[in-house]
Amino acid sequence: MNPDPPGSIPGSEFDLIRRFFTGLGPRRADVLLDVGDDCALLGIPAGQSLAVSIDTLVAGTHFFPDCDPESVGHKSLAVGLSDLAAMGADPAWATLALTLPRRDEAWLAGFARGFGALADCHGVRLVGGDTTRGPLSLTVQVHGLLPSGSGVRRGGARVGDLIWVSGTLGDAALALSLIQTGEVVVDAELRARLDRPTPRVALGIGLRGLATAMIDLSDGLAADLGHILVASGVGAEIQVTQLPLSEVVAARLGSGVDWTLPLSGGDDYELCFCAPPERSGSIRALGDQLGCRLTVVGMIRRAPGLILHGPDGAAINLESSGYDHFSHDP
Amino acid sequence: MNPDPPGSIPGSEFDLIRRFFTGLGPRRADVLLDVGDDCALLGIPAGQSLAVSIDTLVAGTHFFPDCDPESVGHKSLAVGLSDLAAMGADPAWATLALTLPRRDEAWLAGFARGFGALADCHGVRLVGGDTTRGPLSLTVQVHGLLPSGSGVRRGGARVGDLIWVSGTLGDAALALSLIQTGEVVVDAELRARLDRPTPRVALGIGLRGLATAMIDLSDGLAADLGHILVASGVGAEIQVTQLPLSEVVAARLGSGVDWTLPLSGGDDYELCFCAPPERSGSIRALGDQLGCRLTVVGMIRRAPGLILHGPDGAAINLESSGYDHFSHDP
Repeated sequence: MNPDPPGSIPGSEFDLIRRFFTGLGPRRADVLLDVGDDCALLGIPAGQSLAVSIDTLVAGTHFFPDCDPESVGHKSLAVGLSDLAAMGADPAWATLALTLPRRDEAWLAGFARGFGALADCHGVRLVGGDTTRGPLSLTVQVHGLLPSGSGVRRGGARVGDLIWVSGTLGDAALALSLIQTGEVVVDAELRARLDRPTPRVALGIGLRGLATAMIDLSDGLAADLGHILVASGVGAEIQVTQLPLSEVVAARLGSGVDWTLPLSGGDDYELCFCAPPERSGSIRALGDQLGCRLTVVGMIRRAPGLILHGPDGAAINLESSGYDHFSHDP
Repeated sequence: MNPDPPGSIPGSEFDLIRRFFTGLGPRRADVLLDVGDDCALLGIPAGQSLAVSIDTLVAGTHFFPDCDPESVGHKSLAVGLSDLAAMGADPAWATLALTLPRRDEAWLAGFARGFGALADCHGVRLVGGDTTRGPLSLTVQVHGLLPSGSGVRRGGARVGDLIWVSGTLGDAALALSLIQTGEVVVDAELRARLDRPTPRVALGIGLRGLATAMIDLSDGLAADLGHILVASGVGAEIQVTQLPLSEVVAARLGSGVDWTLPLSGGDDYELCFCAPPERSGSIRALGDQLGCRLTVVGMIRRAPGLILHGPDGAAINLESSGYDHFSHDP
């Protein structure tokens, strides 16, 4: 449907796409046909499975409309790479569907820079896309490869497994909260946790064969761990005093009465995974090798449900366990 | 980023997704891990390449906001299947990123019905998705398979090839124009050409090894054939009197002075392809077998550019050769 009459500058949309989105990420021999045809054609090595994940970021819902475009480009790819990491897949290709209210070359250039830099980091080639006019939003699909049968699913947690998380929790949620309240100038490092999350790609790949279940933390530990528990048919106990916190989040928690930040704060894009205790040595070695903090925060139990033990040993009741886009509707 | 505080009905978004988007399309043995984990896992047979294409439909740009959701569901998948058809790929899987302004179960049910019915027709399984809150839009990525090396690209047209199109041209554009002007009640068949296009999947697959170049007609014959010409480094001549027209479009053209509908009208989702004359018999046999009208409309020439011959033999000058989302911007 073309609600406007066809324009008078034939080819300009195609030029726009070609200019900013051709050649993002490194060349790969397995890209048989790149951006610019009806489809991209991709070669999958024998013995490998394909992992795919699609995510949308909407201006005003997932990022501030005035957020710098380089960060938006980074984050739009990072959230997908985080999904690949949670499966233990090697990133390979991405496609991008970009909806823009108007032609804005400066914005596009910034976006492409942020997207391209992260794509370069992880050897991901942008192989296809679509550009449409409408309210600003971005949908990225990532494609990864992994040896057939080796994906780390959500449903493999077993009773007695330790529960691990990477990095620190609650930083992105704290940054968001500070920005929204206008309380303080948010320091660049904290802001980067919100705007430019680091997908734990190498960690996820390293955990193939070690982790029994894995998920990335986009909606908060309580909600995302909950998905592992439901898929695995088990329960868990978490010691909140063991949650890995940055200094700034720890200071914020103060008296320790509000554990919402590290338990329910979204957008951390750390990995949460389970593994039997006898693999802890290998897991710690992997964390050391990657320079990635890894922390045991609890244990898988037989009884369903998630029990959160506070500093005094008493159970904590979280009113909400994660972000739900539609939970306010009747 | 969660601009609203986390909601009070944990899990409802996940329930929403699960309820409408689990089990769409037939089960397939090559889906190793279906909707519901961080990634879907897909098996690719040895000797096959993967074809992917991503497209966004935005309410108000690509469909009327009050369009029935079943049609939107159909069309959101059809445009991707049309891209696979243009490559000659067998459809296999789809992912869906849905952005909705509010929870609307009736809309979702209708959408899923339309999407699912077309997915069933073509053996496509919905293997992953994302649901977010925001202005209504849908992004679908399709995934198809084809024997390695057999994709029909845009760049293969050779001098002397005949230019073919499937079906009839201009119907979708006529339907849109009638709706926009409120001129007449649009008959259901014509309206379906706009709202529920038929992707030419079987034709595309059948043309592997016959067509030298192929594209699907989403932006109009002149613009889309133009992509083949540029990619192939050739030119073409089209006889507009040979363009295949439905009775209703033929009647509309009247005196024949305005060829915009069949030449520049978008959304037909027919295939345009090139092939040497000696393959015409095989191509006609394929069309007969599929019950699909196939028409020769012109020929590939050495000199670059697209020449359009009118009924009197004189060249036609099209002011615009296709829809450009951004061509009105400075």
